[in-house]
Amino acid sequence: MSIGPSPSQNRSLVEPVAGNGLLDRRFFLKQGIALFGASGLAAVSATPANGADPPRMPPWMQIPGAGMSGYGSPAKYESKVMRTLIQSKPGTTGSGASRTPIEALDGMITPNSLHFERHHSGVPDIDPDTHRLLIHGLVKRPLIFTVEALLRYPMVSRICFLECSGNSLIMYSPTPPALTCGQMHGMVSCSEWTGVPLRLLLEEAGADPKASWLLAEGADAAAMSRSVPMAKALDDAFLALYQNGERLRPENGYPVRLFLPGYEGNMNVKWLRRLKVTPTPIMTKDETSRYTDLQADGKSLMFTYPMDVKSVITRPSPGVALRGPGLYEVSGIAWSGNGTIKQVDVSADGGQTWAAAALADPVLPRALTRFRIAWNWNGAPAVLKSRATDESGAVQPARDALVSAHGTNAIFHYNAIQAWQVETTGEVKNVYA
Amino acid sequence: MSIGPSPSQNRSLVEPVAGNGLLDRRFFLKQGIALFGASGLAAVSATPANGADPPRMPPWMQIPGAGMSGYGSPAKYESKVMRTLIQSKPGTTGSGASRTPIEALDGMITPNSLHFERHHSGVPDIDPDTHRLLIHGLVKRPLIFTVEALLRYPMVSRICFLECSGNSLIMYSPTPPALTCGQMHGMVSCSEWTGVPLRLLLEEAGADPKASWLLAEGADAAAMSRSVPMAKALDDAFLALYQNGERLRPENGYPVRLFLPGYEGNMNVKWLRRLKVTPTPIMTKDETSRYTDLQADGKSLMFTYPMDVKSVITRPSPGVALRGPGLYEVSGIAWSGNGTIKQVDVSADGGQTWAAAALADPVLPRALTRFRIAWNWNGAPAVLKSRATDESGAVQPARDALVSAHGTNAIFHYNAIQAWQVETTGEVKNVYA
Repeated sequence: MSIGPSPSQNRSLVEPVAGNGLLDRRFFLKQGIALFGASGLAAVSATPANGADPPRMPPWMQIPGAGMSGYGSPAKYESKVMRTLIQSKPGTTGSGASRTPIEALDGMITPNSLHFERHHSGVPDIDPDTHRLLIHGLVKRPLIFTVEALLRYPMVSRICFLECSGNSLIMYSPTPPALTCGQMHGMVSCSEWTGVPLRLLLEEAGADPKASWLLAEGADAAAMSRSVPMAKALDDAFLALYQNGERLRPENGYPVRLFLPGYEGNMNVKWLRRLKVTPTPIMTKDETSRYTDLQADGKSLMFTYPMDVKSVITRPSPGVALRGPGLYEVSGIAWSGNGTIKQVDVSADGGQTWAAAALADPVLPRALTRFRIAWNWNGAPAVLKSRATDESGAVQPARDALVSAHGTNAIFHYNAIQAWQVETTGEVKNVYA
Repeated sequence: MSIGPSPSQNRSLVEPVAGNGLLDRRFFLKQGIALFGASGLAAVSATPANGADPPRMPPWMQIPGAGMSGYGSPAKYESKVMRTLIQSKPGTTGSGASRTPIEALDGMITPNSLHFERHHSGVPDIDPDTHRLLIHGLVKRPLIFTVEALLRYPMVSRICFLECSGNSLIMYSPTPPALTCGQMHGMVSCSEWTGVPLRLLLEEAGADPKASWLLAEGADAAAMSRSVPMAKALDDAFLALYQNGERLRPENGYPVRLFLPGYEGNMNVKWLRRLKVTPTPIMTKDETSRYTDLQADGKSLMFTYPMDVKSVITRPSPGVALRGPGLYEVSGIAWSGNGTIKQVDVSADGGQTWAAAALADPVLPRALTRFRIAWNWNGAPAVLKSRATDESGAVQPARDALVSAHGTNAIFHYNAIQAWQVETTGEVKNVYA
C-alpha cells in the first residue's frame, strides 16, 4: 500500500500558489492531508477514538427499518433545503421566481425538485393527452403533434445549465444585499435534458429556407412568447420531454418545453404549444416590455441571448461558515452560454493574486462546471473571489466594470465576480470589493 | 437556411446497414426524416393541420396557474411511473428490492426518487447529528467522524451507475418471464455522486501500509458488512454524501455511504458507520451465505466485484409497443464495471447481423451510456437485441453461453444479451432467442 507522493513532491505542493494561503489545485488529488497534522484540518477534522471499539449501537440498528417506496423523498432532516420563493408582487402567487439553494448542493446536477422556477402566470395543469403542439407559418405542411407522437421521435440528451436572465439582479443594488448565495445567484440550475431535435420537426413540416425566425408560444395563461433565430433552431435546439431521466416537472414545462442550450432561461419556452415560422422577429411583449436590457442612457439592448461567462463560490458563502483556521476546500460552480468553461481562478486576497482551481470532470459545453481548490486559512479576515474564463476567451468582469459599462438601470445579464468577506469568526458576508 | 445533407449523401444513409431495416447510426443526426414521407414516421407522426390557426385555447390558458413550491413533485399524470416493489419474502417489509422503471426513462441520469433500492433490514431513520463513522483497526490514529465534519472535507464528483449483483436474476429462469424491462433489469440506476475520497481519510488515520483489506459496516439493523480490497479503497473509492446534487436519500444510505465505482451494489455499503483496516477479508455473512455465485458443480465464486459489461433496449420493450410499420428510434442503456462502453451493436434479425448504435455524449467510465439507432420496421415479426463491448474488450455474452458457463444455480451477475420479440401488432415480448 502506498499513500501520497514522495517527500520532495510534498514540498512543492504545500507551498502557496497565490496570496493568503491558496494551494495548488492538485493538492487534494496528489497530496495527503496528514502533513498538515493537528494544525491542518483541525478545524473540521475527526475526533481521536479511544481504543478500537465501534461507537455504541445506535437505536436505528436495533429495530428493522422502513419499507421500500414507489417514489422516494429526501430525509426529513433535510427539510430546510428548499427553494426560496419570491413573488413578483404581493398577492401574485403565480408570478415570480424560486431560487435553487446552490450553497446546500454539490456536484453539477440539480435535482428536479430544486430546479429554479420563473413563471409569468403560474404553473398550468396541462393534461398531456389533450395538449397539442402546432408548427405552422412559412411551412409546406402545417403539423399538429400530440405528446405521445413526440415521445416516439428520435431523441438527443444534453447536460445543460439553464439560467434566468434576471439571475443575480439584486447585485445591481448600491449596497451589497445580506442574502444566501442561492437567494442571490440561485436562478441557475443544471439538468440532463432529453428531447426531440427541432431540426427534424422543421424538416418534416417543410419550413421555408428563406424564413429566419420562429415564434415560440407557451400554454400558460401569460401565453409567454419569444422570437427565436432559425439558425439556433437548426443548430442545437430541441423539444425537451425528459429532465434528469424522468418526464419534465410541471414547473419546468410539462409536458414539453423548448430548449436552447446557453440562451437566457426565458427563451426556453415552457408548456410549448406553438412554433410559427416567420420572416422576422415578432416583437412580443416578452421581448419588448420585458427581457430587454435598459442601459444608463435610456436605450435598451434587445435579443441578448447567450448567458455570459460566470462563476460563484458556494462553499464557503453566507451561512456556510468556516470553523477556525486550517485547511479547507473552496468549491463553486461556473458556466457559460458561449460553450465550455476553460479556467476558473480563485483569489483569497481580494483579487490581488489568483490561482487556477481544479475543474471536476466532465467539463461540458453549456453545463455547470464544479471547481475546487485547497485553501490554508490563517484565521485573518480574507476576501474570496472566483473568476471564470470560457473557451471563447470571455472573462467574467469585475462588478465595477460591469456597472460602468451597463449602468444600474439594467436588471438582466448580471455576471460580475462575486466577493465573499471571511470574518475572523469564520462567518462569510457579501461585499462589493 | 439549409436543412439536411445533399441528395448524394442521402442515398447512402437510407440504405440499411444490417438486416431487417437497421439504418446508419448517424441517420437522425445527418439525415432528415422527410425523405421517408408518409410511409416513414407515419406510425408516429403528426397530423396535418388544416390552415394556420393555432389549436383552440385550452382551459389551462384561461386561468392563472399554480404557485411556486419549495420542493417540487412530478406531474400527477405521471403517477404510474414508480419503482416496482418486490419483497424478499411475504411479510418482510424491510427486506427486498425495488426496481427503476427504466423503460419509462430516457438519458443517462436516474432521478433520485426512482433509483433502485435493495435493503436487508429496511431503511433506518438515522439522525445525522448523532451518526458517527469510526475508522479503526490497523491504523495509527483511530478516528471518529461526525457527518458535519465529513461535509467539510475535499470532495470528488462522479457520474456512476450502481447495479445490484442480483439484477436480472429472473432471466436465469427456464422460461422467459413476462415482465417489463424495469421489472427484470431495473436494479441498475445512474447518479452523479459526490463525496470524500476514502484515500484522504485512511491517510489521516494512518492506515498500516501492510494492511490490504477493509471491513465496511452499515448502520442498518442487518449491520450489512463487506470486505473491501485496500487497493480499491485507495484508488477511486469515496464516501458519498450527495446524490444528483442534493444530500443522499434515506434509501440510498443517508447520511453517508461507501461508493466503489463499478463494483456490485451490495459492496457500496449504505448508512456507513465503520471502516476497520484488516490484514485479510473478514468473511462476513454478506459475503459467505450471500453474494457468492453458486455454480453448476456446487462450488461458489467469491469476491466477484466488478459488474460485467451489459446493455438492454428500453424502447421498444414489453409495454412500450410500436404503432405499425415505419421509421423508429431504438434506444437503450449500456454499462460496464470495467470502464467505458466502447461500442453497442444492435440486431433486428435475432443476431444474424449487427449494426453499431450511436452513443450519446458524454460517454463516461462506469456510467450508464445511452445508445440510439434508427430502424425502418417493415411490420413483419422481428427479434431485437443489443450487445455491448467495453474498453477492456469484454463483450456481452449470449444467454446460452452464460448459462452454459455458470449454470442456473447462480442468481448473481447475469449480464446476457436481451432479446425482444416484436410481433406484427407492434407488441413486444421477452424471448430466449
